[in-house]
Amino acid sequence: MSEEESSANNDGLSWRTIMETVTPHFKLVYFIKRILCSTRTKYQEVDIVEIPDFGKTLFIDGKLQSSVNGEWVYHESLVHPVMIAHPNPKRILIIGGGEGATLREVLKHNTVNEAVMVDLDPDVIELCKKYLPELHQGSFEDPRSKLCIADGREFLSKHRNEYDVIIVDLTDPIKDTPSVFLYTREFYQLVFNALKEDGLFVTQATSIIHTPDIVASIYKTVADVFPIARVYHVWVSCFSSLWGFVLGSKKYDPTSLTRKELVTRMRERGLIKRLKFYDEIIHEMLFHLPKFIREDIKRRGRLSTDKNPVYLLE
Amino acid sequence: MSEEESSANNDGLSWRTIMETVTPHFKLVYFIKRILCSTRTKYQEVDIVEIPDFGKTLFIDGKLQSSVNGEWVYHESLVHPVMIAHPNPKRILIIGGGEGATLREVLKHNTVNEAVMVDLDPDVIELCKKYLPELHQGSFEDPRSKLCIADGREFLSKHRNEYDVIIVDLTDPIKDTPSVFLYTREFYQLVFNALKEDGLFVTQATSIIHTPDIVASIYKTVADVFPIARVYHVWVSCFSSLWGFVLGSKKYDPTSLTRKELVTRMRERGLIKRLKFYDEIIHEMLFHLPKFIREDIKRRGRLSTDKNPVYLLE
Amino acid sequence: MSEEESSANNDGLSWRTIMETVTPHFKLVYFIKRILCSTRTKYQEVDIVEIPDFGKTLFIDGKLQSSVNGEWVYHESLVHPVMIAHPNPKRILIIGGGEGATLREVLKHNTVNEAVMVDLDPDVIELCKKYLPELHQGSFEDPRSKLCIADGREFLSKHRNEYDVIIVDLTDPIKDTPSVFLYTREFYQLVFNALKEDGLFVTQATSIIHTPDIVASIYKTVADVFPIARVYHVWVSCFSSLWGFVLGSKKYDPTSLTRKELVTRMRERGLIKRLKFYDEIIHEMLFHLPKFIREDIKRRGRLSTDKNPVYLLE
Amino acid sequence: MSEEESSANNDGLSWRTIMETVTPHFKLVYFIKRILCSTRTKYQEVDIVEIPDFGKTLFIDGKLQSSVNGEWVYHESLVHPVMIAHPNPKRILIIGGGEGATLREVLKHNTVNEAVMVDLDPDVIELCKKYLPELHQGSFEDPRSKLCIADGREFLSKHRNEYDVIIVDLTDPIKDTPSVFLYTREFYQLVFNALKEDGLFVTQATSIIHTPDIVASIYKTVADVFPIARVYHVWVSCFSSLWGFVLGSKKYDPTSLTRKELVTRMRERGLIKRLKFYDEIIHEMLFHLPKFIREDIKRRGRLSTDKNPVYLLE
Repeated sequence: MSEEESSANNDGLSWRTIMETVTPHFKLVYFIKRILCSTRTKYQEVDIVEIPDFGKTLFIDGKLQSSVNGEWVYHESLVHPVMIAHPNPKRILIIGGGEGATLREVLKHNTVNEAVMVDLDPDVIELCKKYLPELHQGSFEDPRSKLCIADGREFLSKHRNEYDVIIVDLTDPIKDTPSVFLYTREFYQLVFNALKEDGLFVTQATSIIHTPDIVASIYKTVADVFPIARVYHVWVSCFSSLWGFVLGSKKYDPTSLTRKELVTRMRERGLIKRLKFYDEIIHEMLFHLPKFIREDIKRRGRLSTDKNPVYLLE
Repeated sequence: MSEEESSANNDGLSWRTIMETVTPHFKLVYFIKRILCSTRTKYQEVDIVEIPDFGKTLFIDGKLQSSVNGEWVYHESLVHPVMIAHPNPKRILIIGGGEGATLREVLKHNTVNEAVMVDLDPDVIELCKKYLPELHQGSFEDPRSKLCIADGREFLSKHRNEYDVIIVDLTDPIKDTPSVFLYTREFYQLVFNALKEDGLFVTQATSIIHTPDIVASIYKTVADVFPIARVYHVWVSCFSSLWGFVLGSKKYDPTSLTRKELVTRMRERGLIKRLKFYDEIIHEMLFHLPKFIREDIKRRGRLSTDKNPVYLLE
Repeated sequence: MSEEESSANNDGLSWRTIMETVTPHFKLVYFIKRILCSTRTKYQEVDIVEIPDFGKTLFIDGKLQSSVNGEWVYHESLVHPVMIAHPNPKRILIIGGGEGATLREVLKHNTVNEAVMVDLDPDVIELCKKYLPELHQGSFEDPRSKLCIADGREFLSKHRNEYDVIIVDLTDPIKDTPSVFLYTREFYQLVFNALKEDGLFVTQATSIIHTPDIVASIYKTVADVFPIARVYHVWVSCFSSLWGFVLGSKKYDPTSLTRKELVTRMRERGLIKRLKFYDEIIHEMLFHLPKFIREDIKRRGRLSTDKNPVYLLE
Repeated sequence: MSEEESSANNDGLSWRTIMETVTPHFKLVYFIKRILCSTRTKYQEVDIVEIPDFGKTLFIDGKLQSSVNGEWVYHESLVHPVMIAHPNPKRILIIGGGEGATLREVLKHNTVNEAVMVDLDPDVIELCKKYLPELHQGSFEDPRSKLCIADGREFLSKHRNEYDVIIVDLTDPIKDTPSVFLYTREFYQLVFNALKEDGLFVTQATSIIHTPDIVASIYKTVADVFPIARVYHVWVSCFSSLWGFVLGSKKYDPTSLTRKELVTRMRERGLIKRLKFYDEIIHEMLFHLPKFIREDIKRRGRLSTDKNPVYLLE
């Protein structure tokens, strides 16, 4: 705690907490200043709360999804590498992403004509619209946006050869939750089919520190479907962790772009000055995994299939 | 928790915890498997415990200092940038660094003739020697090592124009602890004086996420003394945070080295294959701060002096 | 956890907690199933939540006030000893008691013509009316009830020689809260004046285990004003503690009633079969303090005055 | 926290905690000042720690067993009712009770010629002898004491018609621990057989608040074996709970003694002034269960047998 933040300690008003289970032996305790909303939708438990230093924060089923102070590191890292790797991304599909922050980042690319967001849970979207305008920043109202309340897997099965970029922004594949089947080989095959012949996709891939097995399994599963597969990583301060992403591509390799090409694309698409985190150097950093992580990913994990899926225990 | 780690949950034997206060509104709870040592030295409270996933871990005054699983990110990032920036570092001074892991990394540079480690608390060193061989890896026995039990500030005041590199590896400047006065302008002046005319130094600089004011203050204070001052950062998984470092230099700029020069120096000094994290690309990454952090550091903090020091409240 | 309650563990849906500070070294963590209401009134923070085993529970400023499963031990012990000790209690004044459960118990005595409840915070009463009908059980609608939104101390200062029984049911005297001045000699003098010449009063008196100094101070302060003063105690399971009460009386001594007299009064007033906890034997138990508590109360505490009040630090 | 205890808050040295699971939705967090011993014996995990307000405290497998400040309520309540109910208890058997505090209370009765303590785990006894002299107070050295390291059930099976009083002081019957089979009908039959024809026995019976099913089951199981069976209860502050006990007797009924008889026996046996909690009035209080608890015990629980034992899930 720095000097100027100390007064927060004196109010003595912080007994409400969320205790997030990272592993059975490591938990994070957030002391909540205010509860904006705490409810159960048809599919999940949703809490939107205010935490000092983190700001307004969305939890789904007890897992921190986004904090106003710092979510941009996650959302810029999820969206821009895959978007910039495509020379002209026009039609974009987002699976999940209820807060609207992934949509927000996608729409910053002026090449985009259509951004379809498919989410199962309309209540989460409504709650985020109401309580978290800092996250969506009006992106649901953009004429290029199309919201579709549907099961992501079912939606995909009805679309072939249609999208330039698909972005999968879902909760972790926790045992006995439906998310488990949105990280399997069969799911990635549907993603592959829905992409155009030069399409790319990306998925969030859980914590690289606490669940390296899961990251490695997602990588191995994506690599089984796509000719080009890349793991990348970024520290996400509001997740208190180093986060993994897996990118699958039919044609373009995001790691082959020069810094100059990256800057040119960013400039042409009107991104410069609109981002807080991502730039051409960070693009490179994201894909440069340190040796011990490279070895971890090689050594761990396995193919995840509908019949034998990989999942987290909590 | 990944699939294979789950059995840890079934033993039900984890009620002993350390609750680390990151800010008044954010705490980390570690569930301890085994307590190897829990004691009070003349200066501080020391706990060496085993935590699943983290491995053996040292806490000083309730703050996590090093975990066997992952400490190398911190120690390699602390030591190698400043060492590699010097063309021929022979005499090295470490202030603090009781675990011996900083010493271990320093000794990997084959240019080093003498590595003096100055620490106030002999008991911490003895406990680390006994319980944490994974950290020091015998570095205290290296003939180039010299251990000196003394107050760091007093030691510095007796040495002028002597060291090529000085590494400051101390606990955070928490209110009412002696560390506060090892982060002030007067202290950095002593460091400056003890360095040779082309010397460099580095100090750990607290969490860039949770105490940005402190990082910015240390930067501003070092920049007031040294002609060249740089902030750099790395994600330290065992600290669950993005960590800050501040480097001060009389002559050499660590950011001006090309990747080729970095590789050449690493090869000449026998570092290649001995490191788990640091390499020439990571060197560049460390110094590339994202935009929102650059702005934070510009905007926050102030000069810290003996008379008006900057400190954390807890 | 007993066998049949275990399924609660399997839902994995309990990350929302309230961490109640009992002492700086002892905290209680409640895992919340559902948040019914979490808000700030003009005067205090109010949370009404559902906790497995405890049932719906009211917290004020982070302190548990009443749980549906078990509140009756507290409320019956607060109300009936002082009511039964009066031969014919007709006009009753309750200071505090926002949940309406104290009022509920008072109204069970068929001697009562008028029960005035004075509480500062109308919002707490409205929230309890709405969310906690199990507590008030309609007592606010009883024609004998009179609700008065006012400062208790100011109210008292306007009433002399009026009430048979006064019941003080307030939050603990925590430093820098207004409750501090509702436990001083000056306050008890106002209570004394508002009572008829044979009146009695009782106040809750904090935890006998965790704050014996406070219990002893309240006793010494009441004994300074009233000719008859008695400490009594009961374990309150929803407070996880042994609770203290202090009774002051102008004439009647509650400890001098025989079991037979107690039963007669209970029968005449229609109490038999309407109570879950209190009976003639428990009446005796309440006032029988074990030796180590008697000694604690003798040895600790001091007079609390407006000028030099006694309070808890948190 | 009362005024004079507040300085404890300022040392800021309390990050080591034990988080005791009472139910899956209710946990107690103790902040530890000092760890005296933390180890694993052949049978169980043992922690002896110092907690402000509680004093030195023994935990076995993460469950608080005894705190120096307050253990006497538990130990006096366990021992004296059953001892006083016997007109002349000479040979006593204690099963469990490693701390030596149960033995200490038994030896206060000057009728006792022999007190045999049977405990499975010699290490716990050694650790308690070394670190917790406040508990045993030298009772292991009393010439009437006999310590026997053995399995309690096996020991019992070899003794018939031998003891006046048997006291069972064990950890709770937690699933998958050996204690489960020391609360079954078969076990109580062995106890019955080992008692003389006018013998009595008592067992601790878990928390009456948090595990009423277990208390009721123990009662029903004891009542199935002994002609006289009684549940009694007491608030144990260091357990933060209302505790249950079950007494089984072949002949004497502890509830039929008058206060005068109780005082006479206490005086003859030299108990007066040596006890902090138990007296003739408290004896009566222990056995007077409030209505809602009586109903709970009637309604809940079932016979526990070796084949179908009753247990707690954690």
